[in-house]
Amino acid sequence: MSHVAACLVCLSVVLTGGTGLLTPRFPRPKGPVLRSEYSYDTKYFTQPVDHFSFATSDTFDQRYLINRKYFEGDGGPIFFYTGNEGDITWFGDNTGFMWDIAPKFKAMVVFAEHRYYGDSMPYGKDSYKDPRHLGYLTAEQALADFARLITHLKSSIPGAADSPVVAFGGSYGGMLAAWFRMKYPSSVIGSLAASAPVWQFEGLTPCGSQYSIITQDFQKGSPGCDTRIRKSWDLLNQIGQTAAGREKLSSMFSLCSPLNTTKDVTVTMTQWLLNTWFNLAMVDYPYPASFLEPLPAWPIKEVCSLITKSLDVLEGIAAGATLYYNYTGQATCLNIQESAVSSLGDLGWSFQFCSEMTMPSCSDGVHDMFFPEPWNLTAYMAQCKSAWKVTPRPYWILQQFGGKNITAASNIIFSNGLLDPWSAGGVTESLSDSLVAITIADGAHHLDLRSSNPADPQSVIEAREQEVEIIREWLQQYYSGL
Amino acid sequence: MSHVAACLVCLSVVLTGGTGLLTPRFPRPKGPVLRSEYSYDTKYFTQPVDHFSFATSDTFDQRYLINRKYFEGDGGPIFFYTGNEGDITWFGDNTGFMWDIAPKFKAMVVFAEHRYYGDSMPYGKDSYKDPRHLGYLTAEQALADFARLITHLKSSIPGAADSPVVAFGGSYGGMLAAWFRMKYPSSVIGSLAASAPVWQFEGLTPCGSQYSIITQDFQKGSPGCDTRIRKSWDLLNQIGQTAAGREKLSSMFSLCSPLNTTKDVTVTMTQWLLNTWFNLAMVDYPYPASFLEPLPAWPIKEVCSLITKSLDVLEGIAAGATLYYNYTGQATCLNIQESAVSSLGDLGWSFQFCSEMTMPSCSDGVHDMFFPEPWNLTAYMAQCKSAWKVTPRPYWILQQFGGKNITAASNIIFSNGLLDPWSAGGVTESLSDSLVAITIADGAHHLDLRSSNPADPQSVIEAREQEVEIIREWLQQYYSGL
Repeated sequence: MSHVAACLVCLSVVLTGGTGLLTPRFPRPKGPVLRSEYSYDTKYFTQPVDHFSFATSDTFDQRYLINRKYFEGDGGPIFFYTGNEGDITWFGDNTGFMWDIAPKFKAMVVFAEHRYYGDSMPYGKDSYKDPRHLGYLTAEQALADFARLITHLKSSIPGAADSPVVAFGGSYGGMLAAWFRMKYPSSVIGSLAASAPVWQFEGLTPCGSQYSIITQDFQKGSPGCDTRIRKSWDLLNQIGQTAAGREKLSSMFSLCSPLNTTKDVTVTMTQWLLNTWFNLAMVDYPYPASFLEPLPAWPIKEVCSLITKSLDVLEGIAAGATLYYNYTGQATCLNIQESAVSSLGDLGWSFQFCSEMTMPSCSDGVHDMFFPEPWNLTAYMAQCKSAWKVTPRPYWILQQFGGKNITAASNIIFSNGLLDPWSAGGVTESLSDSLVAITIADGAHHLDLRSSNPADPQSVIEAREQEVEIIREWLQQYYSGL
Repeated sequence: MSHVAACLVCLSVVLTGGTGLLTPRFPRPKGPVLRSEYSYDTKYFTQPVDHFSFATSDTFDQRYLINRKYFEGDGGPIFFYTGNEGDITWFGDNTGFMWDIAPKFKAMVVFAEHRYYGDSMPYGKDSYKDPRHLGYLTAEQALADFARLITHLKSSIPGAADSPVVAFGGSYGGMLAAWFRMKYPSSVIGSLAASAPVWQFEGLTPCGSQYSIITQDFQKGSPGCDTRIRKSWDLLNQIGQTAAGREKLSSMFSLCSPLNTTKDVTVTMTQWLLNTWFNLAMVDYPYPASFLEPLPAWPIKEVCSLITKSLDVLEGIAAGATLYYNYTGQATCLNIQESAVSSLGDLGWSFQFCSEMTMPSCSDGVHDMFFPEPWNLTAYMAQCKSAWKVTPRPYWILQQFGGKNITAASNIIFSNGLLDPWSAGGVTESLSDSLVAITIADGAHHLDLRSSNPADPQSVIEAREQEVEIIREWLQQYYSGL
């Protein structure tokens, strides 16, 4: 049984024990889109597949979404979302903060899709065929796409030639926003990197920190909640040993497919539950939301309430999981294979995780409520090579983007919700006057990028105010320097 | 007749009229190496051919030269030369400044060879075969090589783990040194970019500036020198029309091969002379040196003296050219095809010039002593495509490295000799407290990087003192921050 949390917006890349199979889950919106009034035109811009070499002259069309409703020309600002691992329309719909503040800044709003996701496929249906086609799916290439797209926008849109650009991104998109300012400071005057675990790499952050944070979230959710989850693993292992036990479990969790083997319990089901608690910690928002699944406000509290009020530990766990997966009551059963169902977004991130995004994670069952699972670089390398036929470069991101030595950069806001497991690998203390950390005590995964909500805790209200203030300063600096 | 000055250390890429053939010249040392006491070990480090993608997993061995004689460990500094378009031993031998100051800084000295030059061939003899093999010859890939090599050095050499690294480079190597600090500030605490024409790109610098500077150099060389050169082009065109005239010219210049056609004169010979004057302006050093050719001190003065004292204009030109090509008296004839003889260094730069290093140059015969030759981007694109089967990306370097918008960077010294034509595209005014321009009134092409010499003019002595002082400050800042 092993796990490696890696995929960013929601989730964990699961290295299921023994099989060497990488089965990442990727967020797929299930509920209604939050704000259908976000309107944009969909456009495409031709990019070289390889910006850094001339071995291929292939090109592809990158999709981007653009709204010029508030932009009045005359060098007004451009708010530019550095798209991450998924369909860009989903990020467009889930990044309400940009839409909320664009009118007051008279900003153009652009969401740029990340290559190899959504509709931005360099080789169409063959894009994921093999390393020769897929190998250009890297952060560096994506950043270069953004730089060229910005030049195109500024040179082709009337009144935008001198427009300052501010980058926004959440999660892996936040990493890209930060790295974009580091590498292309002539393209963007500053970046808001929300919940960007830029330090979740080899040697920078203790690999178990994410699971400690999740454990704290559940501790706070309800007294004894974490203890019950901690107990659940042994109980599952025990009950999974017998056919009768597995039948009981299948029924208790209303599983779509019965648990046939011990491994179905000790590997697949425990991994599924681990992912469930990980995801809950990411989306522990203060109001009902549908980021990964439709959920009530403060879902950990709700789930923990169910977990702790049950007399039986596993029945409590089942009730908690059911809330996460079936809050709307529309599901007739729970599917523990769900984390193994791959969308293209999952696949893409799995490849990135297996090539340059070596983001270790581990649990020990002591400092967290999970089970012992060390980070094993050797196994990771072997499994990635087997799965994707590429050799990961675990240290390259450190060299490319500086690791913890990034104070030569400027004008980056690193915001982190402290409920979010990914805050473990984030920058949570300011590094300089212009590398500003903002922590949101009651925030989960990039809560600040979401649209404002009456239920917002004071901490995210203040964070957004501070962000707006800093962006305003960047713009003032820019305009005063013209 | 057309010319495009482009190749950096010496010379011009010649687009010979009509043929579309790119025939760059590259500096090949002809005289003895200046300082044979520069000693180093030759080592190799394995690099990925492609740092930014996973489409290929090919690797190659990058050569580097290393001297640890003065390095005492304990985090002492590393002086790192970012190798440019040629055999690294030649840069090692011609960058005396690093050797001169290494002892006082107790610095390790490293010269890193640029991929696809010297002994650092990614695909051995096939490296230049076609774009599929040669396409990885880009500045971005070279910078990534440097970053990985530095990590390797620091992690493998005792006492170097915390060593600050200072980059040095001249000409294209200076561009790389500057860009290296911009893109990899965690790898180097600062860079000395000597005679680095980082602004000799589309739209940043008037394309004729280089030729104006050359003209000024010859004006100063001797009264009337530039006037005589200016007159020579028409005279050559006239005399080249007849067989008798060509015979006379062949004899006057002691050419190895007779001038057979008008084009031999109006294209090949005029281009050869243009290159000759361009090169002289680059190597107008205050003491005898053998950077491109063995030459006396202040060679332009010597050449101009011959040009102006002759009663006949063309005889004066012939005498001047002869001094440049045969100062040692060992040549029995002059070879105007010389600029078409390709070494691998020439070829590599020609490819770089034709892929991402679009560095326009032009002359008009009005603001310079040459003949009208506009910069023609369309023709450049077509000729490059024909010659190398790649489509140039004329604007990419601007987007990649920020064009004139580079003030987000820090700790770069841009030094320029004002006699040097390449200073036209250099940074000659400080951009901030830590982007410092140093101009050397009496300096030709990166004179400051050469070893100190009793004949050094005061301007280069002061420039080097200032450079040492700034490097000392960077080191103090670094050590005080540990």
